Amino acid sequence: MLSKSIGYNQDTIIAISTPPGSGAISIIRLSGIDSLKVCMEHFTPNNKTLTIRNIESRKQYLGYFTDGTLVIDEVLISFFKSPASYTSEDTVEISCHGSEFIQQRILEILINSGVRAAEPGEFTLRAFLNGRMDLSQAEGVADLIASQSASSHRIALNQMRGGISNKISKLRTKLIDFASLIELELDFSEEDVEFANRDQLAKLISDIKKELSSLINSFSVGNVIKQGIPVAIIGKPNVGKSTLLNAILNEEKAIVSHIPGTTRDAIEDTFIIDGYKFRFIDTAGLRKSEDIVESMGIERTYKKIEQASIILYVCDISTITSKSVESVLSEFKQYIQDESKHFVFVANKIDKLSKIPSHLKEIIALDTIFISAKRKENIQLLTDSLSKIVKNFNITNDVIISNARHYQAFVNANKAIMLVEEGFANNVPTDLIAIDIHQALHELGTITGEVTTDEILGNIFGKFCIGK
Amino acid sequence: MLSKSIGYNQDTIIAISTPPGSGAISIIRLSGIDSLKVCMEHFTPNNKTLTIRNIESRKQYLGYFTDGTLVIDEVLISFFKSPASYTSEDTVEISCHGSEFIQQRILEILINSGVRAAEPGEFTLRAFLNGRMDLSQAEGVADLIASQSASSHRIALNQMRGGISNKISKLRTKLIDFASLIELELDFSEEDVEFANRDQLAKLISDIKKELSSLINSFSVGNVIKQGIPVAIIGKPNVGKSTLLNAILNEEKAIVSHIPGTTRDAIEDTFIIDGYKFRFIDTAGLRKSEDIVESMGIERTYKKIEQASIILYVCDISTITSKSVESVLSEFKQYIQDESKHFVFVANKIDKLSKIPSHLKEIIALDTIFISAKRKENIQLLTDSLSKIVKNFNITNDVIISNARHYQAFVNANKAIMLVEEGFANNVPTDLIAIDIHQALHELGTITGEVTTDEILGNIFGKFCIGK
Repeated sequence: MLSKSIGYNQDTIIAISTPPGSGAISIIRLSGIDSLKVCMEHFTPNNKTLTIRNIESRKQYLGYFTDGTLVIDEVLISFFKSPASYTSEDTVEISCHGSEFIQQRILEILINSGVRAAEPGEFTLRAFLNGRMDLSQAEGVADLIASQSASSHRIALNQMRGGISNKISKLRTKLIDFASLIELELDFSEEDVEFANRDQLAKLISDIKKELSSLINSFSVGNVIKQGIPVAIIGKPNVGKSTLLNAILNEEKAIVSHIPGTTRDAIEDTFIIDGYKFRFIDTAGLRKSEDIVESMGIERTYKKIEQASIILYVCDISTITSKSVESVLSEFKQYIQDESKHFVFVANKIDKLSKIPSHLKEIIALDTIFISAKRKENIQLLTDSLSKIVKNFNITNDVIISNARHYQAFVNANKAIMLVEEGFANNVPTDLIAIDIHQALHELGTITGEVTTDEILGNIFGKFCIGK
Repeated sequence: MLSKSIGYNQDTIIAISTPPGSGAISIIRLSGIDSLKVCMEHFTPNNKTLTIRNIESRKQYLGYFTDGTLVIDEVLISFFKSPASYTSEDTVEISCHGSEFIQQRILEILINSGVRAAEPGEFTLRAFLNGRMDLSQAEGVADLIASQSASSHRIALNQMRGGISNKISKLRTKLIDFASLIELELDFSEEDVEFANRDQLAKLISDIKKELSSLINSFSVGNVIKQGIPVAIIGKPNVGKSTLLNAILNEEKAIVSHIPGTTRDAIEDTFIIDGYKFRFIDTAGLRKSEDIVESMGIERTYKKIEQASIILYVCDISTITSKSVESVLSEFKQYIQDESKHFVFVANKIDKLSKIPSHLKEIIALDTIFISAKRKENIQLLTDSLSKIVKNFNITNDVIISNARHYQAFVNANKAIMLVEEGFANNVPTDLIAIDIHQALHELGTITGEVTTDEILGNIFGKFCIGK
């Protein structure tokens, strides 16, 4: 059942829909049954024959907006007749000069005429409640507005255009097929017949599980693309980690000195490479330290390594001798056992070497990137390798989950399906299995909003910007 | 002659016209002959029959904006066919989601398709060059966008709607009448006849002078309304000037202590009361001081008093005895001799008195406002009196000059008219008088832009925001 109670009523709502501040143009948007009426009360069109009855939908009319006596601005208004509008309701857009004073005055005048200031996301909430889009699409709109990189933009746009909705609709069809086969048996349960072919059911379950786990797996990629792909810069003290961070960001973000142990706090900043947002984390150099603050920093470094998708292991190549090369290699190899992460061996300070000594051939063999962070040499090679790693992430999926709420629902649906599978294996009565199938359907329904609560809606739309 | 050289050519220009940042909606605007063509190359309308030929002007079409392969956003586009657009050229507005990424991508894609990023104010410059508005109206647009108070908004809107232009057009008509009368005489100068009735000419000159001086005088009001009406808060040290500033602004702007001489820098902030922007200036307390920094502060106080339109003279009423009242009054009366300013006597610290002692009756007689800045008592009485003062400013004029460039031109025109008057008085030859009349006409022409230079245009439009 679709919850229509949250904030939904016959109110006409209004908000400034363009970014806050002043600019050449601003748009003030109204939605609801009185939108046109209240606007026309304050609009003196240049075309004197224009009335509330002959106004055409989606056409822009020039005229003056007044407070009843004084002209406030020369504006364009356009009317979007229900249901052909963003919210499906009658909607009016007022395009005025982008003065903050004018925007506020128009808002004020119309609110005094009986419309109500919209809550954050209330236009999109109405679009959802009126069936213009499902919940995952509405969430896509918010993600689209927040998107900062080509990759997060692509995921959000696909979601807004119904990418996830289509997937779910297919999954639901399969589950409903499944449920009907099972329920047919239930109807005839006293006769102890098996209408549903067990092999066919097993195949269906396996298909659904495959689909679900592919969606669930995509979250690890989708989430990091949305939040920024975490890249930890690690290594011994004074190998040039902070200098490397500054070189990548092209600004003096981290304090750099020749004193080992300069960096204590983990310093983070994001940078977009080839349309992917990376979140670089400069960490304290790894060593045994007597300094309490530094030790706390080193502790944090280990935590950051855990959270990172990519690790840049930096060494000072100019100090590696034929004797020490083994211990460097073994330290690096100890890290790369974690297969959930990608590692790049970065040999820094090539400016201090006239040529790469032969005892480093094992290091070269690690696809090592030789750089001089100080002179900003080969930084591009390094960033290219980062974007290559991300391109090889498992993003062959046509749909990528980037929303934690969706992820949780898919995980829950998957659990229910596993219970179904177990149930069959253990000859659990069909009516109990049917309950788990309905649970899976319910979980999928929460994503698109076919099943929802006021609390969920409040959470989702409360995070939108005003005016959307 | 209208200068058409500055920045004007057949380029199609583009800019984001809504305020910078992210929001629900943003508008990207194009102007120029290729506007529609380049947009349609990247627009996939929902209405598949839509083409560049059948698109209707001022109608909004929904569809997808693409980079050729990938969809960038769901957008609304509207086409304003020349000459019915802001610039008089073909114009397209793209209404997209207000993500900064999307705005930048659309801009980038269209710039790669051959349009050019607009310079600040270039849309309005084109509107001016194409004769859609004159220069004073164009300046009104910029002022309108910048307006922060009802009063500055009203002046800007009137200017944008041609208030000044109409005045100038009437003045020009009078001057041209004058010139033709004079020039008729010139044609017949060898015959030594006087075609022009000298009384009639004197009447014309007097009318023109009256009109000009009324406009010139309005600048003192127009300018302070635009910039904020300067209100200096003055008085002896430790009478509570900074506390009063904070009470008016309703924030802790100035540092307050019980130590006399705490304030040294003049601290300014603006606050809007009844639609007027006031610029409050807290000053160093006036006393002889040995402290060098404080003395510099006191020096500045005197400068600020000179610049202010309104002076709040604050005293600590709790310390005024029957003996000291005379000296307080005489100090105040010494100030109010400056008739160009408005003075308010503010008796602070009424919280320290149980009742107003009888020896203060002369102070009460000064329309004194009794307040407690500390307890924020009667602050409203004080702000009401400020707005009353401004309402009594000479703003009966239908047109108020708020632009220094216009002011200068009117002053110059007035000088030329005075030379004309002098010329007649001294029987200067008519051909020399004609030169001064043409000078006056020229000066008025610079306001509306009938006479202009690239430098003037560059100065004016360079201060506009991008996208207008």
